[in-house]
Amino acid sequence: MQRIYVIAAGGTIEKVYSEQTGAVQNLDSKIDRYFRLLRLPDADIQVTHLMNKDSLEMTDADRAEVRDRVAEILPEGAPIVISHGTDTMVDTGRYLEQAFPNLKAPIILTGAMTPLGFEGSDGLQNLTESLIVARLLAPGVYVVMHGQVIPIDRARKDKDKATLVWK
Amino acid sequence: MQRIYVIAAGGTIEKVYSEQTGAVQNLDSKIDRYFRLLRLPDADIQVTHLMNKDSLEMTDADRAEVRDRVAEILPEGAPIVISHGTDTMVDTGRYLEQAFPNLKAPIILTGAMTPLGFEGSDGLQNLTESLIVARLLAPGVYVVMHGQVIPIDRARKDKDKATLVWK
Amino acid sequence: MQRIYVIAAGGTIEKVYSEQTGAVQNLDSKIDRYFRLLRLPDADIQVTHLMNKDSLEMTDADRAEVRDRVAEILPEGAPIVISHGTDTMVDTGRYLEQAFPNLKAPIILTGAMTPLGFEGSDGLQNLTESLIVARLLAPGVYVVMHGQVIPIDRARKDKDKATLVWK
Amino acid sequence: MQRIYVIAAGGTIEKVYSEQTGAVQNLDSKIDRYFRLLRLPDADIQVTHLMNKDSLEMTDADRAEVRDRVAEILPEGAPIVISHGTDTMVDTGRYLEQAFPNLKAPIILTGAMTPLGFEGSDGLQNLTESLIVARLLAPGVYVVMHGQVIPIDRARKDKDKATLVWK
Repeated sequence: MQRIYVIAAGGTIEKVYSEQTGAVQNLDSKIDRYFRLLRLPDADIQVTHLMNKDSLEMTDADRAEVRDRVAEILPEGAPIVISHGTDTMVDTGRYLEQAFPNLKAPIILTGAMTPLGFEGSDGLQNLTESLIVARLLAPGVYVVMHGQVIPIDRARKDKDKATLVWK
Repeated sequence: MQRIYVIAAGGTIEKVYSEQTGAVQNLDSKIDRYFRLLRLPDADIQVTHLMNKDSLEMTDADRAEVRDRVAEILPEGAPIVISHGTDTMVDTGRYLEQAFPNLKAPIILTGAMTPLGFEGSDGLQNLTESLIVARLLAPGVYVVMHGQVIPIDRARKDKDKATLVWK
Repeated sequence: MQRIYVIAAGGTIEKVYSEQTGAVQNLDSKIDRYFRLLRLPDADIQVTHLMNKDSLEMTDADRAEVRDRVAEILPEGAPIVISHGTDTMVDTGRYLEQAFPNLKAPIILTGAMTPLGFEGSDGLQNLTESLIVARLLAPGVYVVMHGQVIPIDRARKDKDKATLVWK
Repeated sequence: MQRIYVIAAGGTIEKVYSEQTGAVQNLDSKIDRYFRLLRLPDADIQVTHLMNKDSLEMTDADRAEVRDRVAEILPEGAPIVISHGTDTMVDTGRYLEQAFPNLKAPIILTGAMTPLGFEGSDGLQNLTESLIVARLLAPGVYVVMHGQVIPIDRARKDKDKATLVWK
């Protein structure tokens, strides 16, 4: 049984449509409902709902909170998947890379361009990808989405292509 | 083969999530893709994409355009389903009722609280309901959604309950 | 609040895929899970899981059981929807029509060609249709599916077209 | 742009429900429709529809056909994903391992316990997993499904658990 930690930090992947406002917002976390659609018989997924923020609104204090949660988990040596808004995913990833220079397991940042459960969503694909490569990757910080595994120093968001790309 | 006319006027039912803006907007019409999920072997559905507007932005000129399209269809005696935003659905319905005092077929207004294709959407339910009751109802103007058939004079939107209700 | 009774008798609409046998079978009832996808704010749906049989295997005793359950409900005057296999749906409908010559509410038989939850399923469409027309139809026994409302005496299954048709 | 070859050989993942027979069968291939749900901006997926068989019916001649197709692709050095029935997936994998002792890219066998598009299907999860790990794995033959990456010599089907497991 492989333990994998998931830290839910919000972003588009978690957004819901509000019938009252007609907007998509970070209200309730829904990532758990989607994990349950996956069959992971030999994985022990431990989810922490840390925050549920549009990543453009993440502050230094929020990033410090992510770092502190990662620091708690690291001694166990298990891989960590962080679901996060794509706009500042790379910023958070670099911050973690600097904070933890001697990782013993991979830290993966993932997210989505369209919320989980909306037609055409890439959210479940990206979660699925992150959870399986979490077992294979060397220690380090990565972005994983859209079939891609990009070391954090090489990743940047391409708004026009609506994905993360190599730089 | 029963002919049924559908006039697509926009509203939440047609909204799509824009990855560029992070908002749900009336961009491309998607109602046809959802009709194709239904089996209607003895119905001949004729769709007119008249406009694709949030119903709060519908003007008098827009309502006149809906009325003109209805006027073209009416002589045929076939039922008409109008997909429309729920906020001003009742206004448009009353306007049509006044414009056409001697209907020979039902006119049905329907829509959705959550866009077609979003988790928990009521859009396909409401389209399904509208298309089957279109064959059964007496001439008149109605709101049909959420299992309800409400004559237009008795209908009002209840924002808190997120539905149309009898008044 | 309109009460509507549902009697679940099985048929393809309820079939599930068994990973052990690789066959689709009537095992657990799933119709309730699908009802919950519908918004029916002013309906009070009362479901009885009477049996879960391929309709080709329904016996005279099974039909008598359906009749007995209908007889219990009828005095209340509420509409009844019976989910049933399509192969002998018409037989059961005629049997009920003969058993209850003086109905005061409609009895609707519905079902599906492809099980609920399988791609391309017509099950949720047919349930949606049945529940809304249950409020509109005159007393009598009907088949409702695929946008059609067919009095039982006029209904027959057309295997090639994979639907019920008028005869 | 990373080229990945997919060889579709059938199995449960490709089965469809036949309304005429009421059985699930290998009729038309549907794997392409599901690939299109994935976002793979830097992958060039080349699909060969080799056969569409229940894996219990695969013969030696069928396995030789798979081997011949693999032999054509191998010189290019691109990873290969084979969608295959789970019952004899390990047999085919071992056969390929013996046929190609000096691989320069991974060969991945994947499949599903429930067909693509049926509620609860694991098919899209397994395809998603296979396509991303295809880029990461060392040369060799593997089973990839349910979050697991199992070298072919260590894999066996566990019918009761409805998955492939390590032995």
